[in-house]
Amino acid sequence: MSGPWVVGVDIGGTNLVVGLVPVEGGEPCGLRSQSTQSEQGPDATVKEIGRMVADAIEDVLSKEGGASDQVLGVGIGCPGSIDRPRGMVRTTPNLGWVDYPISTQIANLLQLPTVLDNDANCATYGEWWRGAGQGVEHLVGITVGTGVGGGVMFDGRILRGASGSAGEVGHTTIDLNGRRCSCGNYGCLEAYASGASIALRAVEGLRAGSQSVLTELADGNINQISAALIYEALQLGDEYAREIMLETAKFLGIGIANLINILNPDVVVVVGGVVGAGDYLFGTIREEAQERSFKSAFEACKIVPGQLPETAGVIGAAGIFISEIPGQL
Amino acid sequence: MSGPWVVGVDIGGTNLVVGLVPVEGGEPCGLRSQSTQSEQGPDATVKEIGRMVADAIEDVLSKEGGASDQVLGVGIGCPGSIDRPRGMVRTTPNLGWVDYPISTQIANLLQLPTVLDNDANCATYGEWWRGAGQGVEHLVGITVGTGVGGGVMFDGRILRGASGSAGEVGHTTIDLNGRRCSCGNYGCLEAYASGASIALRAVEGLRAGSQSVLTELADGNINQISAALIYEALQLGDEYAREIMLETAKFLGIGIANLINILNPDVVVVVGGVVGAGDYLFGTIREEAQERSFKSAFEACKIVPGQLPETAGVIGAAGIFISEIPGQL
Repeated sequence: MSGPWVVGVDIGGTNLVVGLVPVEGGEPCGLRSQSTQSEQGPDATVKEIGRMVADAIEDVLSKEGGASDQVLGVGIGCPGSIDRPRGMVRTTPNLGWVDYPISTQIANLLQLPTVLDNDANCATYGEWWRGAGQGVEHLVGITVGTGVGGGVMFDGRILRGASGSAGEVGHTTIDLNGRRCSCGNYGCLEAYASGASIALRAVEGLRAGSQSVLTELADGNINQISAALIYEALQLGDEYAREIMLETAKFLGIGIANLINILNPDVVVVVGGVVGAGDYLFGTIREEAQERSFKSAFEACKIVPGQLPETAGVIGAAGIFISEIPGQL
Repeated sequence: MSGPWVVGVDIGGTNLVVGLVPVEGGEPCGLRSQSTQSEQGPDATVKEIGRMVADAIEDVLSKEGGASDQVLGVGIGCPGSIDRPRGMVRTTPNLGWVDYPISTQIANLLQLPTVLDNDANCATYGEWWRGAGQGVEHLVGITVGTGVGGGVMFDGRILRGASGSAGEVGHTTIDLNGRRCSCGNYGCLEAYASGASIALRAVEGLRAGSQSVLTELADGNINQISAALIYEALQLGDEYAREIMLETAKFLGIGIANLINILNPDVVVVVGGVVGAGDYLFGTIREEAQERSFKSAFEACKIVPGQLPETAGVIGAAGIFISEIPGQL
């Protein structure tokens, strides 16, 4: 058997993913993923998470033959502003929750100790622990999904900052008079490169007369176009979808150049749906980052896709839990 | 007597400043400042520094009655990209030097051990050690002078990054299609907020018809307008100079918001000539930073002017030297 395990919970703006991560190494097991119904409120989501985790534990223990004390606890990744010491979500624009004690709620439901962190910190930690940034001294993670997030690590530790909200890469300004962002500001990286922003830019172009298979894929209702649909069009060889994604890569390259100039990391790992759009994006990301960053800093930095598609958040949430068990790591 | 001392050397794009910094605390003494004649090349500048330091040492020792072994070494701050282990300046756009072994040259000339660092790191360290950021856990310094630089500190240590060039805040993009920067890119913070950029924006406005006492102060030759002249016009109550500086404060606020979002520091300290333009600038800097940064991160962060005008670089260069003496700090 491959226990002990720690449960990882990744609460995304689009999907909930849970799984059991073996403490000693190896793939997560009992993985479950379903769409996040955040509009039903946090209590309903917590119940759903409880059900998913209970199923996953039962499944894994029955297959692997372990006892329930082999499940040590739960690491939880959640988007937005997190109050770690109190296990609270302060605000999470992409879910709409405010001041919710998610850590306690899940701990009570599952009768297991919990640790809460920002979802992008979890994904970054996951890639550092078991993915594309293994063992690297200076790592930056940038997560491109419903929103754009980030995590900053030095020497195996996540930079938390004065109030626990370091790494909010998505809300750095790259265009001071630019697009309105969901946060209310103008020109944030997220307003260009998040899944929702990618879709919005595509729709604007189609309205302005661009031709694309997207119109067909969306059954003529272009308001239904999502980033996922654009990735689909890309697989079909659609030129317009390709343009939109190369533009996205440019925006990401600018955001990454800023991170390189400020932090001079060894590795920047890009995580999330956008990675599935194709490796070729990384050529454009690197070109743009090179143009806008210090030569020695750019040359010292690898910009790579994550190696844990779908599971970086789950693995990282569990990894952070493990790193906080006294005597571990 | 107040020795032992460490010499601090601050090589700015505009001025050379040297002084003796007492190891045990107290004001730097024997301060000397003169304009940097960087166009005469690094060898001439090193000779000049040697003369200034020798004078300062003689002056202080004769007044304080110490012996020359009370001068422990020299900390050097230099703009641009620095190779610390080799004591080399790799490139420094504002001085025009390339691959110059400045640390060895000064050590040979003065027969004292030397430590080299980036000038903005020195100023940041100076403010952390004996200025506006004393003892703070997460500190960011932003230096506004000939260029715009920065330094990032955690737990009393400067973040150096993978190749020693972390903290290059001036070359972060805030306007992706914006002004051309001296580094060759577009929309860097430095292209808006450096001394040269402040002057350029002022000149452009005057050419476009704005009225200001600046024209008179420059004897009708508006190409002679410098940031220093704009600060002078400001003291005379000139409305146009005020506009230019409030705009500058907005740009700085954007750059600082990006730092707050990424690093979530306790304190951002703004250092350099711009601080002399008046405390009122900080109102605008804070407003802009507040609009563009995460609420909890903004609330956790003080944005303050440096407390060591003219000497932050000298004090910090000496402080970094001291921090690297085994057994110190």
